[in-house]
Amino acid sequence: MKAFSTVVVAGFMLLTVWLYTSGASNGKVDYPEGYRQWTHVKSMVLLKGHPLYETFGGIHHVYANTKALAAMKAGKSYPDGSVLVFDLLEAKMGNNAIVEGARKVVGVMQKDSRQFTETGGWGFEGFKGDTRERVVQNAKTACYSCHTSQKENDYVFSTYLK
Amino acid sequence: MKAFSTVVVAGFMLLTVWLYTSGASNGKVDYPEGYRQWTHVKSMVLLKGHPLYETFGGIHHVYANTKALAAMKAGKSYPDGSVLVFDLLEAKMGNNAIVEGARKVVGVMQKDSRQFTETGGWGFEGFKGDTRERVVQNAKTACYSCHTSQKENDYVFSTYLK
Repeated sequence: MKAFSTVVVAGFMLLTVWLYTSGASNGKVDYPEGYRQWTHVKSMVLLKGHPLYETFGGIHHVYANTKALAAMKAGKSYPDGSVLVFDLLEAKMGNNAIVEGARKVVGVMQKDSRQFTETGGWGFEGFKGDTRERVVQNAKTACYSCHTSQKENDYVFSTYLK
Repeated sequence: MKAFSTVVVAGFMLLTVWLYTSGASNGKVDYPEGYRQWTHVKSMVLLKGHPLYETFGGIHHVYANTKALAAMKAGKSYPDGSVLVFDLLEAKMGNNAIVEGARKVVGVMQKDSRQFTETGGWGFEGFKGDTRERVVQNAKTACYSCHTSQKENDYVFSTYLK
């Protein structure tokens, strides 16, 4: 009986650790600490005249944490705990070159299939510039509505640049 | 005496390991295996009309290995074994966006102050596209001559984008 109790307690402890490490905090997307050290997936520049210029104009880099990268490379659906970052910087044009300017927003997709049931299992958030200020009012209309076009790729637009 | 011999042998072994791990192979810059998993430092786009367009036109990403990244962040000179990669891709323009195309060249700077004495302690090389084909004929005139402008930064142009 004592052994059984120990197993139950250990089980709860593991569950707590699992919830803590793979779950978003109270239904909110976590700030992706240290993402600049994650793997760089790909980049793109949106210029004036692009339909998404108002929101996403500039140069953006996509970064993936270990879980997300493995799923992306394997072409599989993303496990809980996967995080993708869309790091949007100003694109400063001049002298026939485009250089990176200030950070505009740190966009985040965090997979937590238990918490984000309304948006494909992904939480969507944007953090303004270099701050922790949240900018997404309604993830369903502001993010998910467009990402649904990528349902076959588990709602992810990016593919890894080898 | 036996203890002394052991120390000497151990010393030589360590030296061999050190030479093997931090030195370029026979005065040639090594292909930077796995650099796509290194830290992404910054990016830039060179467009038609830029003075370096012929050689470096496209979108490039700079990656740093652990040694190089630490030195870059600290603003110190780069220790032997530091490697920086200049990953040049085609920049495909269309619909008011620039997307990444095929890889043009993988440019590499590898620090080895014993072997590359003529070019500031750095070896310079370029590998064509996704191949291992070397494209730099004369590192001194093709690379170093321009990098000397950055002598104060140990010949490195890039700074880390936080």
